[in-house]
Amino acid sequence: MEIKVMQSVTEANENKAKEIRKLLKSKGIFMVNLISSPGSGKTLLLEQTLPILKKKYKIAVIEGDVATDKDAQRLMQYDIPIIMINTRGGCHLDSQTISKALNELNLNNLDIIFIENVGNLICPAEFDLGEDEKIAMVSTPEGADKPIKYPYLFRGAGLCILNKTDLLDLLNFNKNEFYKDIKNINRELDVLELSCK
Amino acid sequence: MEIKVMQSVTEANENKAKEIRKLLKSKGIFMVNLISSPGSGKTLLLEQTLPILKKKYKIAVIEGDVATDKDAQRLMQYDIPIIMINTRGGCHLDSQTISKALNELNLNNLDIIFIENVGNLICPAEFDLGEDEKIAMVSTPEGADKPIKYPYLFRGAGLCILNKTDLLDLLNFNKNEFYKDIKNINRELDVLELSCK
Repeated sequence: MEIKVMQSVTEANENKAKEIRKLLKSKGIFMVNLISSPGSGKTLLLEQTLPILKKKYKIAVIEGDVATDKDAQRLMQYDIPIIMINTRGGCHLDSQTISKALNELNLNNLDIIFIENVGNLICPAEFDLGEDEKIAMVSTPEGADKPIKYPYLFRGAGLCILNKTDLLDLLNFNKNEFYKDIKNINRELDVLELSCK
Repeated sequence: MEIKVMQSVTEANENKAKEIRKLLKSKGIFMVNLISSPGSGKTLLLEQTLPILKKKYKIAVIEGDVATDKDAQRLMQYDIPIIMINTRGGCHLDSQTISKALNELNLNNLDIIFIENVGNLICPAEFDLGEDEKIAMVSTPEGADKPIKYPYLFRGAGLCILNKTDLLDLLNFNKNEFYKDIKNINRELDVLELSCK
């Protein structure tokens, strides 16, 4: 009789993430993992950024969604490689899936890969995808209390984007509270205020 | 040697949910499971609704959060029983936890229980809590494509609340698309347009 020792999900994910990080480093590719709630503006950020960045860099996008390929369709016009991952209800991307997506890309011809994670402020924060940087995006209508109420993502992120600042005057968004909480959670975290629209 | 057969997480959750449903029916209590993205306005909906409903009904709230007791604190002033569940990073509430919360309430003296689930459009949709009705809440700044992109919740909900309609004029929110998608996902689902603010 044989006893099979299974890796824990977390351990397997971390090991694969390490492999990815090593592979991308050897190819000189910078990978960004973009995480936010549903509807904070991740796809619009890419829509506004890709035309500028693609003048200088070779870019690909890995697009994660629970259902539909709507976001991938929106990015089609920018004429860059897009790998669409439909999680069929799954609440996060994992490194195994990213590894398979990378197999579909020509890594000898890329500088930057953007991962647009599934819209979820909780689960994606726990899964290392082998990225160089996590970006935590939050939009003003969601309220200033999001960092303190969902601290795990903000603790692990390298950049926070505060989007939809064009709506600030209409909302009771307490900027002091927002910045104070961010400082308490992750003193190193830079915040970039944007209106992607 | 003994072989222990463990129930699957899903099966155990469903069995406990059935127990809860039976218990609450015997007590004549109606339980609502309120689900949305972070910052769609679940707590504000309760803040606006409780003062009106409590004139006629005996109400309790079970408050789920990943971290902090900020939402529970906001509801303290309404002088009703509040059970706070801190999931410490967990992405949904389950029926086992709700069962424990119900043990803390006097079920002989209640008409309605509101569960404010963790802010997440994905995972909470999969966990039956023994509620009578799921309410799927979505706010206009999140975009009209939320039902089609996160269909599981809308398929299982008895009511959809579209919140923050006061911002509609400022957003590119396509109402036709929103209602068309809802009809395709769940023909029975009623939509209530609100501005909780």
